[in-house]
Parts: sequence; C-alpha cells; structure tokens
Amino acid sequence: MNATYDGPRLALDFDALAHNWRTVCAAGMGQPVGAVVKNDAYGLGVAAVVPRLWALGCREFWVATLHEALAVRHSLRDAAAGAARILVLNGLAGTRPEDFAAQGLTPVLTGPHELAPLAGYAARTGARLPVAVHLDTGLTRLGFGAAQLPALQPQGALWRDAQVTHWVTHLGRFHDPEAPQCLLQRERFVEWTRQLPAALRSIATSSSVFAGPGWHFDHARVGSALWGVPASQRATPMLRPVASLHAPVLRVADVPAGTEVGYAGSYTTPGPRRIATVALGYGDGLPFSLVNRGYLVLAGRHVPIVGGVAMGMVAVDVSACAPGEVRPGMWAEVYGAQQSVQALAAAAGVAANVLLALSARLAPRSAAWQEEAPEVVA
Amino acid sequence: MNATYDGPRLALDFDALAHNWRTVCAAGMGQPVGAVVKNDAYGLGVAAVVPRLWALGCREFWVATLHEALAVRHSLRDAAAGAARILVLNGLAGTRPEDFAAQGLTPVLTGPHELAPLAGYAARTGARLPVAVHLDTGLTRLGFGAAQLPALQPQGALWRDAQVTHWVTHLGRFHDPEAPQCLLQRERFVEWTRQLPAALRSIATSSSVFAGPGWHFDHARVGSALWGVPASQRATPMLRPVASLHAPVLRVADVPAGTEVGYAGSYTTPGPRRIATVALGYGDGLPFSLVNRGYLVLAGRHVPIVGGVAMGMVAVDVSACAPGEVRPGMWAEVYGAQQSVQALAAAAGVAANVLLALSARLAPRSAAWQEEAPEVVA
Repeated sequence: MNATYDGPRLALDFDALAHNWRTVCAAGMGQPVGAVVKNDAYGLGVAAVVPRLWALGCREFWVATLHEALAVRHSLRDAAAGAARILVLNGLAGTRPEDFAAQGLTPVLTGPHELAPLAGYAARTGARLPVAVHLDTGLTRLGFGAAQLPALQPQGALWRDAQVTHWVTHLGRFHDPEAPQCLLQRERFVEWTRQLPAALRSIATSSSVFAGPGWHFDHARVGSALWGVPASQRATPMLRPVASLHAPVLRVADVPAGTEVGYAGSYTTPGPRRIATVALGYGDGLPFSLVNRGYLVLAGRHVPIVGGVAMGMVAVDVSACAPGEVRPGMWAEVYGAQQSVQALAAAAGVAANVLLALSARLAPRSAAWQEEAPEVVA
Repeated sequence: MNATYDGPRLALDFDALAHNWRTVCAAGMGQPVGAVVKNDAYGLGVAAVVPRLWALGCREFWVATLHEALAVRHSLRDAAAGAARILVLNGLAGTRPEDFAAQGLTPVLTGPHELAPLAGYAARTGARLPVAVHLDTGLTRLGFGAAQLPALQPQGALWRDAQVTHWVTHLGRFHDPEAPQCLLQRERFVEWTRQLPAALRSIATSSSVFAGPGWHFDHARVGSALWGVPASQRATPMLRPVASLHAPVLRVADVPAGTEVGYAGSYTTPGPRRIATVALGYGDGLPFSLVNRGYLVLAGRHVPIVGGVAMGMVAVDVSACAPGEVRPGMWAEVYGAQQSVQALAAAAGVAANVLLALSARLAPRSAAWQEEAPEVVA
C-alpha cells in the first residue's frame, strides 16, 4: 500500500539538532544559550523542535510575537512549561503587561514608548514586570538609542516599574562579526551597558557565538546555527542540517522538440525531452525567482528546473535519467543530504532562512507524516 | 486598552467575495461554477472562505491535495459537507481509492499510471469510483496526452473501473485566452473530448470565463477571480479585492545622515531621516526581492521600503510624515484599499497570487483577530 504523495514533506533530523545544540554550547564556553524559535522555529515547527531543545537542556526561548510565545508554552508539558523563560522580541506591542505576567513572558522593550504601559501595570498591581531591553547600537530597527539611555538609568521610571533581566542588541552585519560596523556596535554595547545596572548582556547570535570570547558576554541567543544553517562568512564549525524537504513526482512525460513547458511559454524544449512534474510550488515556499534556474535532486542526479514556479507545481528536465527511472511517486530532494538549502537559496537569490521560514505551513502535516514513517523513494 | 500589534493581520471582505462570485456566475452564463480553493484558498483560509462560498450557492470545490480536501470537508457542517463535491487536482497520488470513496472525493487523474489503482479498487469492491480526468492539451504538466487517449475510450479499463464526471484541461497562457497557443489548446480539447464519452468539459478558469461563450463549455472552475485578483490581460470586469493585509509599526526613530538601516548596509540614509520599523517580513510572505523597492501605506502616504526584508521586519522611510504622525501601534497597509496586491507584486517581480498564497500562515490568527474586531489605526 502506497503512502499518499501529493505534496512536499519536511523531515527533521533530531540527532543533528542535538549535535548543533552541543556545538553551540561548546562555542559559548559556558554562558547560557537561548534558542531563537520565532516564525514557528524558522519554519521547522515549534511543536517538534521546542520539546527536544528542552530535553537537551535549553531553558530559554526567544520569539517575535505573543502568539508565538503561547505556542512555545503549549509545546511544553506541565513543569517544563512553567520553568521555561520565554522572551518576546517585538516587545509588549500593545499587550497589557498583566497578560505577559500571567503567562510568565518577558517582553524585550523596543523603545521608550513601552515605558508608560509598565508604569500603569506597576501602579495597578504594585509589581515590577521582568523585562529585557533592546538597545539600538547600529541596526536601526528596534530599541533605545544613545539619546534615550537616560531613561534606562537606575533612578528612572524603568527600574521603578520593571526589573531588567537582559540588555539585548543585534548586529547589522550579523554574518560578519569582524566587520568594522560590528566592532563599533560592540563598542557601543560595552560602553552603554557599563553605565547601566547589571543584567545579562546578550549580543552573540549564530555567527558571533563562534567568533571567540570577545563576543560572548553573558549570554547567547541562537537560531540559524541550531538548524544547521551557517550564518557566517568565516569558517563555520561543523553544523549539521536539521531540515530536509522532499516533493513527489506527479507525472512524467516524454515530449517532442518545441513543446512549451509551464505557464506563458517560459520554457520551450530545444529537443525531445523527458519532463517530470513535481508537486512543489511558490505556495510551499519555493521562490518564484527559480524560472529556468536551480535544481532538484532525483534518482541521485541534479535535474534542472525548467519553466516557472506555479502555486503547487514545478517541472524538471529528467532527460538524463534512463527511461522508466523516474516515476510518479518518487520523491525529489528539494534540499537535504544531496543539495544544501544554501545552494538552492543561492540559485533563487534569497537567504537560506527564506527557504526554511516558508516551510512553516508544511510542518504540521509533515509531523504526522513522519510518525507514519513512509518509505521515501528517491 | 490596546489590542496587540506585534505582527501582520489579514482581513477578508466577504461582501466583495459575494460580489465576485455573482460576477463570475453571470459571466459563465449559467454553467456550473466550481471554486478553486487549493493552498488554503490561495492563502485566504479555507475555514473562512468555503462556508461562505457554500452559502452563496457554490457546490463544487477544487483542491490540490487530499489534506486540503479534508480541510474543505471539515469547514462545512453536516449536510453541507456531504453534499459538496470536492475534486483533487493532484489525483489519487498513491492514496487508496477506498479513501477517496469513503470521503466522497473525486480525484482528477493525472495520467495512465493512475488506472491500475482504480482497477484494484473495482476488483476489491465491485464499485466504480467517480473520477475526473486531466487532459494535457499543451501545458505539459498533468494529464493524458494525445498518445494516451485510447486508454480513455469507452471500451477501455477506465470506464470499466471508474465513472468519469469531468474532462479537465488547463491553459498554458491562462491570462490570455486569445493567444494562438490557447486557441490550439481549446481546439485539441474539443477534438479529443468529441471522441470520448460525455462528461462535463472544464477548461474555463478566472480569465477565460470572461472571454465569452466560446470558452464556457459545461463548467468553469475559478480561483483568482473570486478573490478579486484579475488573471487577465484583457479588460477585466469589476472584481473587488477580498483580502487586505496590514502590519503594525513597532518603532519610529529619527536618525542622522549616514545611518545604516537593516542588515548588511543595504541602505544608508542620505540625510536625516525618520524610519519606521514594521512587523512584517519574508516569513510572513513579503518577497525577499523588495530591497529598497516598493511601498507600504502609512497615514495615507505611500512610504518607501528602505533596506532589505528580514524574517519578521522591514523598514520604511516616513520622513514625509509630520513628527509624531507615525507612531508605534499604527497599522501600515501592505495591500488593500490604497495599494493593490498587484502593485506590490509588480514591485517585487512576482505574481499577485504569490503574495496571497504566502499569507496562508496568517489566516488562522487573523480569523481570531477579526472576531475581536480591534480598531485598525492607519
């Protein structure tokens, strides 16, 4: 009895996740490591990833939104859910501090406009909410800038109304910590936090955690590296890819020269060709830019994408394969052991995380699929 | 009390959906119209859209996968669920015909390799499964080609083992039905189906349903037009956009000349600028190609995207707005009344449906948001 082969399937290698977690912790040389699991764990699925990170010893999770924070809590059972620290990078963002307190969540304050809600909360409850504070040292995205540092001083409203757990900043050239702009950001971070009360200083991420003790400070928060996606231009320690994506062949056709393949005549066969239609499209996160560019892997061969990317289908030229070698029901590797996510992303002109992030919608059905454990033919 | 404003929100205009449904039905001049709701109703959310289409009189739904078909059934209650006809464009694709029969689903056969499972089913059960049959008249994607037509003749295995409800084909230049290639596809469709037993002939889609009676045949299956996304190069009847997307401002900062905004120095301010950080990124479906390209709409103004697109954030230059006019918690229109999804898609170099399709992951939380009905400030 066959398994259904009507759409792409994401698979996760949890041994690789454990390996990467240990690699990152070793690089961090003992400082606490938090896992960044925003965007449904970069598309890998919070429900699958977070309990395993917990089992590996991870006690701190970083997300972007309240919705994501609740999904992290929900993924952990009982005692674990209560003991996990969850930080929300987009800050309070209009949510009542009471709701953060009730759920045990820590907002990462995004700027001075978030101080008034904390004052209201302290006045209403007499309690000081634990918060982290984002410092904008050069990315121009979130946080308090140099002119706003007085608001963070111990005599100010922040410390009256809240308790700061982390000072947080983020690098504009996160992939290249030795860039002069990164060194300047680090210098500002050191100088600014020296003037402020003590809290965990969090600057190291997936690349800088590997850049030596000068980057470690008190804390690292790591996403990409945990999934085995190198975020660095420098030599990256051996990380192993966690995610692989396969998509099934729906049909194979031998067509004569001059046949249009796909929409709008974006490809016309220059000679007789064998074309496989694969159930994978832009709705599954395959970049629309892969018109006659890039490869999938079928029967051990890199087979070129021909024509454009439709919502749920793409064509590959499998003429190099023997007749009958590629059949409906075979699984093409989109990325995995034979083609890295970085290689496909480069062909598409996007960052590797774009491919991962957009697989989020595949995660739930893929989880069920993994439990069924069908045979992957390829 | 504020509503949370930490991520993008999709809103649906069901009056527009009703208007578009009636417009399509009028264009079809009486032939049955099926709704194409693959990819979670093109990202709008099956749970929200399908029951409303049912209430408008739609009785036939087209999806790509078994998983999607079950979601359509689940979205309808009781009698409605049983009475809806659901066609699955990716065919049996390895699923046992018994499972299609049990769920009342009709596979659209993708090629001769799908005949053997039907024979097995007929032998096991004595029943003939209702099926549709895809004919490949020129798209080179799915279906039986000219050489495979004998397998569809009344004396063959298909009719012994199954009952054909629809002959289906799809245009390679669906947006331009008057193209010679489309006329050739139609000619083949007419010629091929004339040799075959009668079943509903389905060729008209969102563009060709408006191209006059020569395209209507017995049936139309329509997706894009229902959502108000014109799929045609020809004059499109007045369709109204169903989906709009808004994303909140997280922070506003005034920065001096020479400030880098976003990753890797992709933008440096040429003078003093006011920069708003918006919670919307490639993980939400915003195309990665929008580096220093395209606009969002804030405070009634088209404000340019500066820097690149991160996983969950993008920056816009709001220097044209008065000081204090743009504040955290305001909602930027990504597409909607002031900027069409087509305009943003054009700036990104993608099809409009790419933007819609990738909003699929936003649909569930947006549905809850719509029930809360917060005030959208913009």
